[in-house]
Amino acid sequence: MNVLIVFAHNEPQSFNASMKTAAVEEFQSQGHEVRVSDLYAMQWKAVADQDDFGSRANADYLVYALEQRQGYEKKTLAADILGELEKLDWADLVIFNFPVYWFSVPAILKGWFDRVFISGKCYGGMRFYDRGGLRGKKTMLAITIGGQEHMLSEEGIHGELDAMLRPILRGTLGYTGMAVLPPFVAWHVPYVKPERRTELLEQYRQRLRHIDSLVPLQFPSMDDFDDQLRPRKCAVTRVCDSDSVRAD
Amino acid sequence: MNVLIVFAHNEPQSFNASMKTAAVEEFQSQGHEVRVSDLYAMQWKAVADQDDFGSRANADYLVYALEQRQGYEKKTLAADILGELEKLDWADLVIFNFPVYWFSVPAILKGWFDRVFISGKCYGGMRFYDRGGLRGKKTMLAITIGGQEHMLSEEGIHGELDAMLRPILRGTLGYTGMAVLPPFVAWHVPYVKPERRTELLEQYRQRLRHIDSLVPLQFPSMDDFDDQLRPRKCAVTRVCDSDSVRAD
Repeated sequence: MNVLIVFAHNEPQSFNASMKTAAVEEFQSQGHEVRVSDLYAMQWKAVADQDDFGSRANADYLVYALEQRQGYEKKTLAADILGELEKLDWADLVIFNFPVYWFSVPAILKGWFDRVFISGKCYGGMRFYDRGGLRGKKTMLAITIGGQEHMLSEEGIHGELDAMLRPILRGTLGYTGMAVLPPFVAWHVPYVKPERRTELLEQYRQRLRHIDSLVPLQFPSMDDFDDQLRPRKCAVTRVCDSDSVRAD
Repeated sequence: MNVLIVFAHNEPQSFNASMKTAAVEEFQSQGHEVRVSDLYAMQWKAVADQDDFGSRANADYLVYALEQRQGYEKKTLAADILGELEKLDWADLVIFNFPVYWFSVPAILKGWFDRVFISGKCYGGMRFYDRGGLRGKKTMLAITIGGQEHMLSEEGIHGELDAMLRPILRGTLGYTGMAVLPPFVAWHVPYVKPERRTELLEQYRQRLRHIDSLVPLQFPSMDDFDDQLRPRKCAVTRVCDSDSVRAD
């Protein structure tokens, strides 16, 4: 298996960095190939703008998604984007390893989604969810959260974690067609003792040893929607069932 | 009223730019003061890293939130962050005007949240939601979405819009204590005719003329949680009621 780890932490000695190192070791010891995109070390450009295109379909008016399509077809996308797309093509499994900022990804990783998950190749037209351009690949979040687990639960002050992560799990990763494995979450990391950090790292290694047995999250099937993306007889379709399972 | 518009679009001729211009005109014609942070024009630095701090509490190990606290107290935060904090202090209403990328903000705006909503001043310890550091201010999203409204509805393929925007509406803006007004959404903008764009702009102006009458979204009250952030007798509290109202 080819594993790409997209890693986003601004402190090389952080717990997230230890997770990244542990993952590289675990996957290599299982005989997998591993590549790491260390976004801060790469000084990854986060901002999606006109500089991402060597030539433009329309030099006078920037429609970012349209330029992504043309730039990919003509291979005139910025070199850093093409480099990540090459890794993405290669990967069977993509791990996103980051600290949760504002119940979401740090901006540097949001910029990876904005710039690398290009229109045309990764999604577009009627190609998303189970028709998405990246179907066949698996993905998983490996994250740290400052809060404690009870704060992100059904009766917790912030509600369920999956509901907060919905635009990432479903709206981004699921949208591209990848099979989205349940997130691995290390809770309360900034506040725990070194022994607890060691335990959490071991739990992460255990998770990675059994990654093949994880059941992906469920998202809608395009088969349940018509060509206007309106539900086909919603009452009896799969998507309504899965939505009720996921309600918070 | 002092109005800050945080604007994030990479095309100066875009519909989002027209929304920004319309908002400036509307607020000024109502006698309000308006300032605009045009993030792309400012070449806003999106990435939260060590360069945000002129001096460090701990030069050997970066804990971003801790450095935010010290940097604010000692006024050694990067000048661009201090500039935005000055605008934020000044503002009674903050409008975030952007195109939705991956059911969220563009990376450049995520970087504004990550870098400007600093620990200590805007939140921290037990100061969030109705005890957040920015309580007393109002905020509203003014957004464009490529999809159509039925796609982001209860039975739609992506589920409800508010559920996708939850980490922003609740997890970011509500978290800081601001009163979060219902988003203004211009649907399907990349695909509609100029006449429809004109209608949408007029709807936006109407919204801004009646902004005082908008009822903020409801989020949990800290009063309903104990000092471990566990629910106080959840069955009879306000937070459980509001959570059930917000279920998707």
